[in-house]
Amino acid sequence: MSFGGVFPYLVSPIDQSGAVMEGVLTDLVDHLIGQGVHGMTPLGSTGEFAYLSQEQRRHVVGTVISANRGRVPVVAGVASTSTSDAVAQTEYMVEAGADGILAILEAYFPISDEGVEAYFTAIAKAAKGRPVVLYTNPQFQRSDLTLPVIERLSHVENIRYIKDASTNTGRLLSIIERTRGRMEVFAASAHIPACVMMIGGVGWMAGPACVVPQQSIALYETAKAGNWAKAMELQRPLWRVNELFAKYSIAACIKTALELQGFPVGAPMAPQMPLGEAARAEIGAVLRDVGAL
Amino acid sequence: MSFGGVFPYLVSPIDQSGAVMEGVLTDLVDHLIGQGVHGMTPLGSTGEFAYLSQEQRRHVVGTVISANRGRVPVVAGVASTSTSDAVAQTEYMVEAGADGILAILEAYFPISDEGVEAYFTAIAKAAKGRPVVLYTNPQFQRSDLTLPVIERLSHVENIRYIKDASTNTGRLLSIIERTRGRMEVFAASAHIPACVMMIGGVGWMAGPACVVPQQSIALYETAKAGNWAKAMELQRPLWRVNELFAKYSIAACIKTALELQGFPVGAPMAPQMPLGEAARAEIGAVLRDVGAL
Amino acid sequence: MSFGGVFPYLVSPIDQSGAVMEGVLTDLVDHLIGQGVHGMTPLGSTGEFAYLSQEQRRHVVGTVISANRGRVPVVAGVASTSTSDAVAQTEYMVEAGADGILAILEAYFPISDEGVEAYFTAIAKAAKGRPVVLYTNPQFQRSDLTLPVIERLSHVENIRYIKDASTNTGRLLSIIERTRGRMEVFAASAHIPACVMMIGGVGWMAGPACVVPQQSIALYETAKAGNWAKAMELQRPLWRVNELFAKYSIAACIKTALELQGFPVGAPMAPQMPLGEAARAEIGAVLRDVGAL
Amino acid sequence: MSFGGVFPYLVSPIDQSGAVMEGVLTDLVDHLIGQGVHGMTPLGSTGEFAYLSQEQRRHVVGTVISANRGRVPVVAGVASTSTSDAVAQTEYMVEAGADGILAILEAYFPISDEGVEAYFTAIAKAAKGRPVVLYTNPQFQRSDLTLPVIERLSHVENIRYIKDASTNTGRLLSIIERTRGRMEVFAASAHIPACVMMIGGVGWMAGPACVVPQQSIALYETAKAGNWAKAMELQRPLWRVNELFAKYSIAACIKTALELQGFPVGAPMAPQMPLGEAARAEIGAVLRDVGAL
Repeated sequence: MSFGGVFPYLVSPIDQSGAVMEGVLTDLVDHLIGQGVHGMTPLGSTGEFAYLSQEQRRHVVGTVISANRGRVPVVAGVASTSTSDAVAQTEYMVEAGADGILAILEAYFPISDEGVEAYFTAIAKAAKGRPVVLYTNPQFQRSDLTLPVIERLSHVENIRYIKDASTNTGRLLSIIERTRGRMEVFAASAHIPACVMMIGGVGWMAGPACVVPQQSIALYETAKAGNWAKAMELQRPLWRVNELFAKYSIAACIKTALELQGFPVGAPMAPQMPLGEAARAEIGAVLRDVGAL
Repeated sequence: MSFGGVFPYLVSPIDQSGAVMEGVLTDLVDHLIGQGVHGMTPLGSTGEFAYLSQEQRRHVVGTVISANRGRVPVVAGVASTSTSDAVAQTEYMVEAGADGILAILEAYFPISDEGVEAYFTAIAKAAKGRPVVLYTNPQFQRSDLTLPVIERLSHVENIRYIKDASTNTGRLLSIIERTRGRMEVFAASAHIPACVMMIGGVGWMAGPACVVPQQSIALYETAKAGNWAKAMELQRPLWRVNELFAKYSIAACIKTALELQGFPVGAPMAPQMPLGEAARAEIGAVLRDVGAL
Repeated sequence: MSFGGVFPYLVSPIDQSGAVMEGVLTDLVDHLIGQGVHGMTPLGSTGEFAYLSQEQRRHVVGTVISANRGRVPVVAGVASTSTSDAVAQTEYMVEAGADGILAILEAYFPISDEGVEAYFTAIAKAAKGRPVVLYTNPQFQRSDLTLPVIERLSHVENIRYIKDASTNTGRLLSIIERTRGRMEVFAASAHIPACVMMIGGVGWMAGPACVVPQQSIALYETAKAGNWAKAMELQRPLWRVNELFAKYSIAACIKTALELQGFPVGAPMAPQMPLGEAARAEIGAVLRDVGAL
Repeated sequence: MSFGGVFPYLVSPIDQSGAVMEGVLTDLVDHLIGQGVHGMTPLGSTGEFAYLSQEQRRHVVGTVISANRGRVPVVAGVASTSTSDAVAQTEYMVEAGADGILAILEAYFPISDEGVEAYFTAIAKAAKGRPVVLYTNPQFQRSDLTLPVIERLSHVENIRYIKDASTNTGRLLSIIERTRGRMEVFAASAHIPACVMMIGGVGWMAGPACVVPQQSIALYETAKAGNWAKAMELQRPLWRVNELFAKYSIAACIKTALELQGFPVGAPMAPQMPLGEAARAEIGAVLRDVGAL
């Protein structure tokens, strides 16, 4: 199985009692597939994995897999500080029918490169041949994969993708040059997708794609066709959406945008706070400008 | 109930299969009480709370409470990114017999001061009158309590202590001056305990106290008596133990030291790595110098 | 006067006695113009402005202007913590014949946005109509221009360019979208030049262009023609040069590379240290691979 | 010559034309000596060395030395990114009659430990036997001296003091333990002076001492006599002055306070901004509370 294109990071709609709101999550999955997304990624940063219990995580992924009915690949997030916990999460996700694993290392104490490598290798093994996407987000996770570690991990057979959520696009080119033929790169919302496609990326995994799926797919198809001038025309207005999602707390922002679009996905998990009126108005204005409201 | 004195942060001895090693944990509790510690704190940073499952956390605290048999106060760590999870943990710990709660906020997305305040207030309420110790460790948790938030939280009736694990001792004096009569300060291993006692602290919660309990108590008693010249004499050699624990990954370091002292508490949780021979030798040498081996 | 294309940051060759080595600097200027560079920038980071006395700075710029004989624009660096000193430097550079000013704010205490704006506005006024290039390098200068400040400064008539040396390429797109028609963007060596050209940049100011001028110009011309596939072919091998200059201390690295190419520009200013043998060998190998040795 | 006690960091009063205001600087020197300070330090951070030209620096130190008339030791700041410039500054200050040198390394590119050591050793040699005080301020200088470098430098005969302006008091104890008998420690305004005296410090060099000299000396004498309970009584209210100077930009703050006390020392150097009315009022209130207005 091969991944590429636009993979929205799904939000996790949880009600006040802690229950997963299956209805709206199913609606969102149907909507995004209807818009043409190439895959879906529950339990990324946008999916608030860091705020969910193991049961909530399982319930969210199960709901997405059921709603998807095999139409597009589902890449489920696995995140932990602990190797044994990450392996157990991976085994569960594979059993539940995930098509791939987005592997996240949460750090508390500093971890040596050797430990980092062992962590991701253990997840890859537990994924039983399903593709693994390395995820690295120095902003939130206090850990970052070094280039030598990434290069070594690219030799593990089913570690086939990386999604780097730094803002450093040059680092992506360094990764591409070192791992060509073994590992593909997905852009994150902090990179300019058109640029990442031009340097050799295969698509993007990003929260904003939840709310501008159609525009994202148009950009992807244009870039994939090598029509860079047209791609930049599509890219410019869309960048305002990414700026917005850098400005506001990311889960709160995407949930607010989806509410405005008619998906009652609820508030971000406490102690995160819902956005205020000014932020809602700004998000609404930008969505209207790009034709997403 | 009032807390003060030397509270070691206990390690969490977990075997390769993930089981809590009750025997050695019970022995350690007996040993520390025998040495005269004034209380005990399972599930601090040293206790690797960030690496343990909910079941492991409960099992560790349950074992400590059983072993303690009511002899000294047990202050159990509660740590989460999520308010509802923190409340559930607190309720469990109180039910299990903890005498107080060490309250820790783990951050993923940035949290507003209002959210931070709500998080700790919710824990305090769930603690049903038992004293709550605020814990703030900017080095590992990526979040820090601001002075205004600390001042506001000091007005919550059972939030009565704070343990600040920054290296900034002046900040402790600022806290003391702002919260006098409502909140007491415990030193952490990055502060010089004798200094914190002199500015008005009531003791320390620290990993090193696990391995130098007797020396720690002698220092505490001397400082409490206001004999500062003698306190500094005791403090100087002990500072080398703190330097060591700043140099090496803290849980790996304390577990290594305890192994050398005859408590087979096992390795730190993967992907943390056990310390190598050189580190073991350095730790052994320092322990011998302070009479702890 | 309008700037665009490849502007190498020139090194400052200073001998052991502190004297500017006019001969080799003149040779380097002739060589670079012969290779087709579109302009030159003495006293950027690569030019070690931070290590030079006022006299040395003046001497370096004077030598470059004389050697240039009006063939390409010379954009001279002006850098200070102090507004009055920056104004005096600018007046001198304009008098000496500089065609534009690269304006750098060095920070010691934090400066408010209002102060930052006043600093650059004062330089612009002193430049008497010559174009000013804002320079921002958060890595070395501990200060960064916020987007609102950049937007306000773009309304100053002769502040017409910005060179942003962060690694955040998305930030460049945000600047371009906010200042279109008033301000143009130059890439730095931490960005991928082909990407910056695609999003609307007008060229790059960078240390590596000193040692790969011909390859840089080929890339620029290809990108300017909109031939992006070919541009990426040229870009890929060149990126290794940028990686090298991120790995080693930048002035030491460019000076070493120029020595290997036959320009005896000397060592970096103490207490910087010259690079060792392994670094020299690595730099030599990369230069050979891209046909620059 | 041996240094100890309270050494105020003097402000640098510069008028709008860039001239040193000798009158008020002379008055301030007379006032502080009248209050009993043990020495004086022009050209520290508070003295805005980072904003002054070489001529202004020389003029400030010359004025202080003349005004002092040999009554107390004058320790002049020397600060540069460049070794040769630092040596030249040191030679000038020694010639001008400075009793000691406060040695500061300003960083632009990262400097290796070997380079750092060479920088300070060169200053020490140029000081021709006069005592050198190492100054390290990670907050503003982006460089920090490692413990091994400090230990090695403590073996240079006339490097006899260190003033560490981190907030990490434990680091001071680590320095004291490693360099005993060769190097003495001065506290900075971010440390609690009473604590630093207790762990073995010999005094403090600090901006606030400019505005609360009498109170500082009373604290110093009490601490030196080993009367720690009384020292803490004096320390508590004074800590509010240090908090204030951490809150506002330091030179602006001390200049404002001195203006309120009747020393018209002028505004901080642009692009620093003078403090607003609210800050002036807060500073006035704190000074009144500690009896300094």
